[in-house]
Amino acid sequence: MSNNIDEMYMRQAIHLAKQGEYGAKPNPMVGCVIVANQQIVGEGCHLQYGQAHAEIHALQQAKELAKGATLYVTLEPCAHTGKTGPCVNAVIQAGIKHVVIAAGDPNPQVNGKGVQLLQEAGILVTQGVLTQEAKALNPGFYSRFQRSRPYVRAKLGMSFDGKIAMKTGESQWITSTDARADVQKWRARSCAIVTTAATVIQDDCRLTVRDIPGAKQPLRILFDTQLKTPQSSQIFSQAGKTVVAVSCTKHTSQAISAWQNKVQGEVECIALSEENEHVDFNALLAWLTEKTVNEVMIEAGAQFVGALLEKGLIDELLVYVAPKLLGNNSISMAHLPSIHQLNENIQGKYLSIDKIGTDARFRIAISDFARRHHDHS
Amino acid sequence: MSNNIDEMYMRQAIHLAKQGEYGAKPNPMVGCVIVANQQIVGEGCHLQYGQAHAEIHALQQAKELAKGATLYVTLEPCAHTGKTGPCVNAVIQAGIKHVVIAAGDPNPQVNGKGVQLLQEAGILVTQGVLTQEAKALNPGFYSRFQRSRPYVRAKLGMSFDGKIAMKTGESQWITSTDARADVQKWRARSCAIVTTAATVIQDDCRLTVRDIPGAKQPLRILFDTQLKTPQSSQIFSQAGKTVVAVSCTKHTSQAISAWQNKVQGEVECIALSEENEHVDFNALLAWLTEKTVNEVMIEAGAQFVGALLEKGLIDELLVYVAPKLLGNNSISMAHLPSIHQLNENIQGKYLSIDKIGTDARFRIAISDFARRHHDHS
Repeated sequence: MSNNIDEMYMRQAIHLAKQGEYGAKPNPMVGCVIVANQQIVGEGCHLQYGQAHAEIHALQQAKELAKGATLYVTLEPCAHTGKTGPCVNAVIQAGIKHVVIAAGDPNPQVNGKGVQLLQEAGILVTQGVLTQEAKALNPGFYSRFQRSRPYVRAKLGMSFDGKIAMKTGESQWITSTDARADVQKWRARSCAIVTTAATVIQDDCRLTVRDIPGAKQPLRILFDTQLKTPQSSQIFSQAGKTVVAVSCTKHTSQAISAWQNKVQGEVECIALSEENEHVDFNALLAWLTEKTVNEVMIEAGAQFVGALLEKGLIDELLVYVAPKLLGNNSISMAHLPSIHQLNENIQGKYLSIDKIGTDARFRIAISDFARRHHDHS
Repeated sequence: MSNNIDEMYMRQAIHLAKQGEYGAKPNPMVGCVIVANQQIVGEGCHLQYGQAHAEIHALQQAKELAKGATLYVTLEPCAHTGKTGPCVNAVIQAGIKHVVIAAGDPNPQVNGKGVQLLQEAGILVTQGVLTQEAKALNPGFYSRFQRSRPYVRAKLGMSFDGKIAMKTGESQWITSTDARADVQKWRARSCAIVTTAATVIQDDCRLTVRDIPGAKQPLRILFDTQLKTPQSSQIFSQAGKTVVAVSCTKHTSQAISAWQNKVQGEVECIALSEENEHVDFNALLAWLTEKTVNEVMIEAGAQFVGALLEKGLIDELLVYVAPKLLGNNSISMAHLPSIHQLNENIQGKYLSIDKIGTDARFRIAISDFARRHHDHS
């Protein structure tokens, strides 16, 4: 019974955490609830990067009522000074008696130290309440620390028979305006959006976040081994920064600089190693990890998505499926030439299935990491 | 407010009607609730073909309490003598004061006559409560009377990228055992299952209903223009009857008889007109309508399903989608060679999206009839 009550308050903390979906990155989303005499006396979340953490907001609201109270928090309180001071100190000073934690902080500067400091101060610490749900808030944050790479989500819009475009390349629009508006939310929570020269040449897409109040533009990454994207492409002139990932063997640094200087807008070229005639995606993931990128969203075609699937580099497919058929002459969602037998299939697990306007939206975990992260569902 | 109460009781009547899902065919599923002094005093449904209708069961339960009561029924009470006497008479004799009807009976022997007789007996009749929901119980029954053809549902099991088999034909099993168990329920509610010689030769499928207590075997229809199905195929030796639809121009009646005589089990060959080298599906639908077939389920390959889709003969797709990818070398769910531009797509509407075990199950309305029938969703 006490366990159910803990889960109830933790669920509220998780609910609060989601308010930081667009602002907290690259910090994790965190929510906090303070309970005294079976009443919530303080609530908080980490709303904006660089600003106060969830615990601080909740303590400020609880004021004197925090004395002797129980604090529920979705992530182990921090023990280090980053943009703000350590939350552990604030919790101790406020006189909190019991701290309930959903999930540990994978950051080596915290990882267990937060719990240790609380316990040393005589605070009772309970761990493991709704752990999977809390971790699922921040797959990219965990991925960055635990696997030294971002969480990779590939977004697709397709027909019910799995086609993302006609043979001619025509693909605007298979899905509904509601589905396309929903994509904006996933762009907004991503730290970076990755696309390819082929996609930009085909669609002249902008890949910006629109109509999400308060959202910052994620980094746009353009995979362009041969630097063939026209410098007049819309993607370069949008608000925010575009990084062009170029093959380091195909071009001299002078040629790259010369190309870059001809583009208007905030553009940076990075030269990365090559693999099978393409920029090495693993090299890009390493670069993105250095830039504290948690979640990456891929918006590209069947060739690129297929290649990443075959390499096991996609954690999650985010797929909008329209209730229409485009027929077997059209282009299938993933180019996977190496599958010849049924048992060679790429196996996933549905994380969620929702109706978005007239379309369906699927989230499918592909990698082991993604499946483990969502095992509660 | 009174309207909400009517809907509440009618919802219960619809709930009861579903108990007849496997037994009532080719009669419609019908449910009935009798309410006196804000209490349900009688409930019934049409459980089994040839046995009592829903109204009779409910009246028997209500006994004297039916006097002055309100009767809720999902379908206009019958005014004719079929396997049982007219329900209208029983309702009048029981002293019911008010009858609330969800949907009219499309059978020309009833259509409006039931309402008329009730009104002539001084009973208040309310129509149009949850009409769409009630009609959606019996799409085949309405289709048979309103369009002179059965309701056609095509069942598919496929991968998330829309593939129903490998290039080699390998397709067992893309979907999970849970999904395959669910298929049994849809077979059981169908009056007939249609397949093709190609599918039987490939899979040696039985197409019987298994593990559904009390279900009768639906008629199995085998589309075999050229009579090339091996007579040893399992489909012929199962419980229930198999009808082989043969081209009337390709074989003499003697040849057809000779072929039929070599098959063990209950098999009937019917010779139908031909269209583009195939048995004419419209001719089969006409034959099925004569046999009072309401719902037909197609279990066949991409060529057959594609051809019917292009002719507008499929009302609903019932699709089980496994969270796996088979790649673009595999066979797409529908062979639709005539689609070259996005605006030539075949448009549907999701009727329902459900999780079945590890798979997803979609019901998609394709024809106008199916979309109209489910407009409440």
